[in-house]
Amino acid sequence: MAPTFKGSDSALWPDLPRGPLSSYRARASFSAAALQLFLEGEDVVRFKKTIFSALEKDPLFARSRGADLPLEKYRELNFLRCKRVLEYGFFSVEDLATSPLRVWALIHCLGMYDWSLAAKCILHLLVFGSAVFTSGSERHLKYIEKAFSMEVFGCFALTELSHGSNTKAIRTTAHYDPATQEFVIHSPDFEAAKFWVGNMGKTATHAVVFAQLHTPEGQCHGLHSFVVQIRDPKTLLPMPGVMVGDIGKKLGQNGLDNGFATFHKVRVPRQDLLNRTGDVTPEGTYVTPFKDARQRFGASLGSLSSGRVSIIGMSVVNLKLAVSIALRFSATRRQFGPTEEEEVPVLEYQLQQWRLLPYLAAAYALDHFSKSLFLDLMQLQQGLMQGHHGARQAELGREIHALASAGKPLASWTAQQGIQECREACGGHGYLAISRLGDLRDDNDPNCTYEGDNNVLLQQTSNYLLGFLERGACFRSPLRTVDFLEAHSTILGQRLPGARVADWLDSAVPLAAYKWLVCYLLQESYQKLNREKESGSNDFNARNNSQVHYCRPLALAFLELTVAQRFHDHTHGPGVPPSLRPVLGRLSALYTLWSLNRHTALLYQAERRSCPGGCDSSP
Amino acid sequence: MAPTFKGSDSALWPDLPRGPLSSYRARASFSAAALQLFLEGEDVVRFKKTIFSALEKDPLFARSRGADLPLEKYRELNFLRCKRVLEYGFFSVEDLATSPLRVWALIHCLGMYDWSLAAKCILHLLVFGSAVFTSGSERHLKYIEKAFSMEVFGCFALTELSHGSNTKAIRTTAHYDPATQEFVIHSPDFEAAKFWVGNMGKTATHAVVFAQLHTPEGQCHGLHSFVVQIRDPKTLLPMPGVMVGDIGKKLGQNGLDNGFATFHKVRVPRQDLLNRTGDVTPEGTYVTPFKDARQRFGASLGSLSSGRVSIIGMSVVNLKLAVSIALRFSATRRQFGPTEEEEVPVLEYQLQQWRLLPYLAAAYALDHFSKSLFLDLMQLQQGLMQGHHGARQAELGREIHALASAGKPLASWTAQQGIQECREACGGHGYLAISRLGDLRDDNDPNCTYEGDNNVLLQQTSNYLLGFLERGACFRSPLRTVDFLEAHSTILGQRLPGARVADWLDSAVPLAAYKWLVCYLLQESYQKLNREKESGSNDFNARNNSQVHYCRPLALAFLELTVAQRFHDHTHGPGVPPSLRPVLGRLSALYTLWSLNRHTALLYQAERRSCPGGCDSSP
Repeated sequence: MAPTFKGSDSALWPDLPRGPLSSYRARASFSAAALQLFLEGEDVVRFKKTIFSALEKDPLFARSRGADLPLEKYRELNFLRCKRVLEYGFFSVEDLATSPLRVWALIHCLGMYDWSLAAKCILHLLVFGSAVFTSGSERHLKYIEKAFSMEVFGCFALTELSHGSNTKAIRTTAHYDPATQEFVIHSPDFEAAKFWVGNMGKTATHAVVFAQLHTPEGQCHGLHSFVVQIRDPKTLLPMPGVMVGDIGKKLGQNGLDNGFATFHKVRVPRQDLLNRTGDVTPEGTYVTPFKDARQRFGASLGSLSSGRVSIIGMSVVNLKLAVSIALRFSATRRQFGPTEEEEVPVLEYQLQQWRLLPYLAAAYALDHFSKSLFLDLMQLQQGLMQGHHGARQAELGREIHALASAGKPLASWTAQQGIQECREACGGHGYLAISRLGDLRDDNDPNCTYEGDNNVLLQQTSNYLLGFLERGACFRSPLRTVDFLEAHSTILGQRLPGARVADWLDSAVPLAAYKWLVCYLLQESYQKLNREKESGSNDFNARNNSQVHYCRPLALAFLELTVAQRFHDHTHGPGVPPSLRPVLGRLSALYTLWSLNRHTALLYQAERRSCPGGCDSSP
Repeated sequence: MAPTFKGSDSALWPDLPRGPLSSYRARASFSAAALQLFLEGEDVVRFKKTIFSALEKDPLFARSRGADLPLEKYRELNFLRCKRVLEYGFFSVEDLATSPLRVWALIHCLGMYDWSLAAKCILHLLVFGSAVFTSGSERHLKYIEKAFSMEVFGCFALTELSHGSNTKAIRTTAHYDPATQEFVIHSPDFEAAKFWVGNMGKTATHAVVFAQLHTPEGQCHGLHSFVVQIRDPKTLLPMPGVMVGDIGKKLGQNGLDNGFATFHKVRVPRQDLLNRTGDVTPEGTYVTPFKDARQRFGASLGSLSSGRVSIIGMSVVNLKLAVSIALRFSATRRQFGPTEEEEVPVLEYQLQQWRLLPYLAAAYALDHFSKSLFLDLMQLQQGLMQGHHGARQAELGREIHALASAGKPLASWTAQQGIQECREACGGHGYLAISRLGDLRDDNDPNCTYEGDNNVLLQQTSNYLLGFLERGACFRSPLRTVDFLEAHSTILGQRLPGARVADWLDSAVPLAAYKWLVCYLLQESYQKLNREKESGSNDFNARNNSQVHYCRPLALAFLELTVAQRFHDHTHGPGVPPSLRPVLGRLSALYTLWSLNRHTALLYQAERRSCPGGCDSSP
């Protein structure tokens, strides 16, 4: 088990140095330590302190912000740091099984230091490792042991140059040859090259490679994954038939060596097929424990979600960092004032507060959401490990998939917009590399793209919601995020509460408006899809032509509601210390109102449609 | 005079290579050459071709995108390129006087190549040079000659570490010493260091330095500018008393050496005061041709506007580049399709069109606006040069100041958001450095900040509009952008046209809605300010508390209307070739509708306020 900080409370929360922030801190209505304890729990707080203390003391992690490190040097340093993190033993198998929130905290500490480092560790241990563990079997455990000892260094090769979002169109092939009991991995052309693969550029020795599995009788069994050795671990030279290299400089995360690879009839032993969902006998017969392809696909949704859930957490960390930088700067930077002599901190301007404080609230609300969704995912994965394959397990997988598919867009966009606002709110000083806001923007940016383009992903969530109506099913889900929709007709007929402005200062009232809005968008989207189909569109076109004003806002509003509802429940529950209730309540109200405010035009529009002759009905 | 391309038409518009874009190009309803000729005119088209041909042929300008150039090397290369551009003679004094659109085109060509290069040239020749020319007199012309021959290299030092937006709070001092007939330039402390000064980091030999001018009797006469030599032109070593250096890495434009300087009792000859608005006699008496400070301030507004007008143009260039990259990529990238076999270009998806095409329209509308505002500014500056100091000249200065103060925010934000959308719309490929979208985002970003933070600048425009009401003056301005507001009460009482959807497909109808909206926001802002004052706020607080929902959207909506109106007039005028009318009309309608769409909630809200009992009145 990894070490934990053993110091006293005063070492956990040392006195902050006196400075221009002191007067603001003295005015706080609550204790920062109490807030941290409530949100994170003492074990995690201590573990984070352990990690940061280790990094602070180790010269390998020293750096000067704004330094101009050449690409090659940065990648080399990042690899050495990744190795050192593994040597510290912070990643423990025990934590993975029993204290997932420690692993969650560890990733975020590394990310706060540098996302290139976190990504390198995650891709090697968690993505490569998990893929082998969850898609493989007993015979593949050796790879995981070697990954922990860094005898092999791993990567995960799904995306190809010409296909990212459309994974079904992946074109790498794996033909089984019974004569030698090997699979022949082959890239038909350069467009089928594996591309974007993190760790593949310089350092990976082994890759989990996705390819279309063909058996000798000529049948294709769809995408399967294989462990393929791509480099000699001693020399790092490519293995025969493998052409592998670095894809070059990116907008950010340049410590990570993203790479490409093509395979020219590369032979791998039959045993290196990761065979949890399908296997090939020595003679060449395909066997699978799943009865149908839909079931097999459902089982793989869980592993897709884990990447997206991680990205939600990464985005939240970026937002937290940016908001902290900008608020602290705003509290110290003085500009203009009521008289020529007296200048006031820019944080005192309503405009500056309007720009920054909603992102502060968003950081808290999304942080809680990301953590709670991570715990839901752990529940799903433990069920899978314990061999649960029932209906509830499948439904849970689908619900988490829907939440992660809109949660990643919401979190990554909120972070991207928040970082930009913070950059601008810091003026010229925010444009200096040393402010770190540029690195945050550049490192957060791919969160909008990888594991599915945000706009494309949102369709998974709207499809999930519309699916209930299309199947005529009850709105009921294991995590109960859709249950309120069962009453959608009733809700749409109701007047909204909150006639007085004061009513809206508790998140309960805007949450009711949100529910109304989601019901409205669900109904509108369903009707739009049906109109499209009635006018002769095929399914593909009907979906495509219903995104912009219907399914897309439906998915986003549903997710915003879920985030706001979870944060509302968390901040209004019986376990909240009384001293924290006021500040948490305000954060919850601010996030909910700010989010809802983006949909004001829709609410007015809905009112007008529902009542062309008069203004006096809901909402 | 700089050279101009002399080739034939087919050399100006050579056949484009066959490729995946050919089928889209073949479907165009218009000739690209005809469109370029209409928008830019043949002289500018030929001049741009001359510039690009020169850069393409010169190895000094060769580079590989995505290359990992060290900071020092990049800055050195950028200086050499700047020198070469001057040697080519593209910047000609004659053009500055008689063909300003050629200078405009030159800056944009250099910016399309690299904004660090354009900025370096502009700061040296146009900003340093213009400051000397417009604020100085006969005795300073020697500096301009030496700037053209690069015997001196210039920079413009206004901003200090602690003061950017609030220029009145600048703290560098210039005390006149009659004993030696010198000014003593002094920085009282580090916070008063000149900071962010482009070209100052490594290469400038001379700076225009702004300082509070004190005469021996003890009076301070406010900010004045001085030519101060900061480095030895041969060795580039700092002059005695000058501490000068580079402020380090920035988020972008890293070819430009931004610097800082402090002055320790640095003596400059009396003659190096730039004395157009005020001078000091050898004995130490302050003399000025202006009767009052307000008039002197008004005369300086014109030079403030030129920076902002330039930034509008720079932002538009960035938007053009990003949109071109993303649209071309979208036309070639195929992903998903109606069947598993057939994939369609992502540009065919309604969602992708919704993401990108409004920015295409915005690029055209803002391009026209920026050019027309630049010509207005030239008119203003020619008036000043010819010694016009009448009321119309002052009003023109104020109107251009108001247009530039909101135009810079609108253009820089539109570009920033557009570049981000383009980056995401290109998926992972957009995240590769070689896509250039990262450079564009990073290089455009400071457009939101320098020459005034966007949010702060918008107040100049709303103050300008509210000033008419506060003074009880007629809404009438030299460029007629505010004239429609004279009828604001009538407009607010009118029903909007456009009952049918088809009506809205010409920009005239959304323009009418825009006018209504600006009148509404003007009235709301005025009432809000008065409510604030009536409830006891001083002017400072009343303004600050009226920005978020009132003055800020007022300034933006007014500017969007102005941009849309100018583009509408330009695309619907008698000089438009018939073959271009349909496409230009569609661009005009798309930009206007897309911009107006951001204010839908306000329009609904206005309707509801104006009619609490029924829905059937305007808008």
